Amino acid sequence: MYFRWTLRSLVSRSRTRAYGLHGGRFFSAACSGAPSTRNPAKIPKVLACRESYFWGTCGFHDIRYQIHQDNSSREEPLDPFALVADELSMLADRLRSMVVAEVPKLSSAAEYFFKVGVEGKRFRPTVLLLMASALNMPIPEAAASGAYNNFSKDLRARQQCIAEITEMIHVASLLHDDVLDDANTRRGIGSLNFVMGNKLAVLAGDFLLSRACVALASLKNTEVVSLLATTVEHLVTGETMQMTTKSEQRRSMDYYLQKTYYKTASLISSSCKAIALLAGHTAEVSKLAYDYGRNLGLAFQLVDDILDFTGTSASLGKGSLSDIRHGIVTAPILFAMEEFPELHVVVDRGFDDPANVDVALQYLGKSQGIERTRELAAEHANYAAEAIEALPESDDEAVLVSRRALVDLTHRVITRTK
Amino acid sequence: MYFRWTLRSLVSRSRTRAYGLHGGRFFSAACSGAPSTRNPAKIPKVLACRESYFWGTCGFHDIRYQIHQDNSSREEPLDPFALVADELSMLADRLRSMVVAEVPKLSSAAEYFFKVGVEGKRFRPTVLLLMASALNMPIPEAAASGAYNNFSKDLRARQQCIAEITEMIHVASLLHDDVLDDANTRRGIGSLNFVMGNKLAVLAGDFLLSRACVALASLKNTEVVSLLATTVEHLVTGETMQMTTKSEQRRSMDYYLQKTYYKTASLISSSCKAIALLAGHTAEVSKLAYDYGRNLGLAFQLVDDILDFTGTSASLGKGSLSDIRHGIVTAPILFAMEEFPELHVVVDRGFDDPANVDVALQYLGKSQGIERTRELAAEHANYAAEAIEALPESDDEAVLVSRRALVDLTHRVITRTK
Repeated sequence: MYFRWTLRSLVSRSRTRAYGLHGGRFFSAACSGAPSTRNPAKIPKVLACRESYFWGTCGFHDIRYQIHQDNSSREEPLDPFALVADELSMLADRLRSMVVAEVPKLSSAAEYFFKVGVEGKRFRPTVLLLMASALNMPIPEAAASGAYNNFSKDLRARQQCIAEITEMIHVASLLHDDVLDDANTRRGIGSLNFVMGNKLAVLAGDFLLSRACVALASLKNTEVVSLLATTVEHLVTGETMQMTTKSEQRRSMDYYLQKTYYKTASLISSSCKAIALLAGHTAEVSKLAYDYGRNLGLAFQLVDDILDFTGTSASLGKGSLSDIRHGIVTAPILFAMEEFPELHVVVDRGFDDPANVDVALQYLGKSQGIERTRELAAEHANYAAEAIEALPESDDEAVLVSRRALVDLTHRVITRTK
Repeated sequence: MYFRWTLRSLVSRSRTRAYGLHGGRFFSAACSGAPSTRNPAKIPKVLACRESYFWGTCGFHDIRYQIHQDNSSREEPLDPFALVADELSMLADRLRSMVVAEVPKLSSAAEYFFKVGVEGKRFRPTVLLLMASALNMPIPEAAASGAYNNFSKDLRARQQCIAEITEMIHVASLLHDDVLDDANTRRGIGSLNFVMGNKLAVLAGDFLLSRACVALASLKNTEVVSLLATTVEHLVTGETMQMTTKSEQRRSMDYYLQKTYYKTASLISSSCKAIALLAGHTAEVSKLAYDYGRNLGLAFQLVDDILDFTGTSASLGKGSLSDIRHGIVTAPILFAMEEFPELHVVVDRGFDDPANVDVALQYLGKSQGIERTRELAAEHANYAAEAIEALPESDDEAVLVSRRALVDLTHRVITRTK
């Protein structure tokens, strides 16, 4: 049994880049993460199958997955979220129980974004559970001691805990960000500050941070505690960088990328690394896990910056324009400024005046700003995929399918339209 | 050499309670915490000297320390703060370096209350450094391994770290509390939210919490991480209890004491326990350290509640009346309500109307509310002192003087006028 999988994405106009990809059989069932009991003899062709895909020039929505199995040929989308759906659901239940507070009002505030229906895309826990499976390889020491199966079961619970902690930190930062931005809505409902007031939103954020820290401590791995606690500092640093940008910083791509790393990529990259550390992997493997998260996070945010201008269409001005209206200069404008230095003056004037937003959009339209941002996003998506490819080989089907799903996520991230 | 130390405090009207107290020579120099090199043969009389003091009936300011040394008699106030002054100063320097952020604005915000002159009373670090010295006894295992001296030096640095973490958590909570209360001033200067805005105050609080968590992780003791992370949850829980009080809860002394524990006593009690845990003490000794902090914290807050009504004088209405004007019902009013049930109606009306505050003050003046609060504070101060007395005996002078200083703090807390 083998499959062929090709993808044409929207990304690079000029780049036609092909690289190998570990194949794996597609499972729609939740990935248990336990060592596969399937007969490895059945999957030699899978291991031999390294398919190529292309960063094409087509527009949004132009993404195809073609899976050819044996002598049948059918198109079937790979759904990384479906792979871990059952586990995500269990994790969501546990998260709800983890944020119960002694005071009912605090419970209501803390669980606000963990309630069924407003949990968001659960992008981070999906990545982390897939990463846990993708790294599910016997660690020599543990294997030698014969304790692999028990170690593995306990390990999975601890890795799930990383996913829960990551969600708590993420939601805490959302709650505080919404207070800072005086936001009215989030995930299609009223923001917590809007519904329950700033005070409870600040307190609920603090509460989630403390619960996250207590949960971290329970993992009894101080490197992991330090790693994830630092992500909170990074979230704050990124937010402050955005709030306190000087004129020359607003023109700097380096500053923008550093801020983006802190605000978006630090949490997922450190959490991915934590997944590897808990499993006892080498520094090299942990670094690959980190690299995956970092580049996926950066790609995600770059596309977010595009969507702020385009929305679900490909046309400029169809997005919410939320960033630019708040005076936040992102990659598309930064690239446009490189082409049209006169845009600097426009940016320096700020965007309180809607007419100035229109002028900036005109420059952006004339420039390659959107395309170059897409290219940059694609480049980071590539790096993320390469990190997965560089992982030590495995002949475990569940491992392979999880790796494939992680690579698939890199495409989803750059081809998403919302 | 021996000393005699008597104290008459303001506290109990009817109680004349005497109990023993470990004596110790008074050092004005900073207490190093290293094992004493003084000849134990010199201090048998100190060990034999258990002096008594009384909870008297006199008013504020009526506190006397009489120290009789050998055949000389002189009055000399014991100053627990002076005992650790040098170490506190070093700790303050390190705290300033610990809160430096990558972004200058965030650094300015985070260091705001760590700058020279606005560090407050440094009550918590003083207690914690004294507790570290008071528990500075060889732990059998470490002593047996012959590594006691190195262990002790490293231990002191780790215990100082607990003091730093505690200050960071405390200041983080102040920053967020001031945002919640829209406070304009703190420690005689503008509050951070007033000076730099709510956004930076929220972010700086988060930043301090994350730095505290990273510092905690560096101690590599997951019980301590969990213990101190839980105090953040307690601070939030206490604040929420205060914000969301229902009518029957506002009348409940139990509810008030629970809230007070969370808001004021949890941090210092857990930190005291952490000091003991790091030193490898038994559960019994750790519990005594915790009991000291808990009861000292409760006594401190009860006196704070009195001072809100009386200020530096003993007269009602001379305090800031900040609590009652914010609708916060504290112990004096709760005791007054027991005597005058008709006060319930007044309390239920709330205190938006200043006339209602005056009515409540009239009831309070007629009642034993202030005195009973003082008694309760004294009771907790007694419990705190008893916890110190119950510690395993030691013949180390530095240990003994630190214990005496901790007991002294229990008196200072209940006799303070600001």
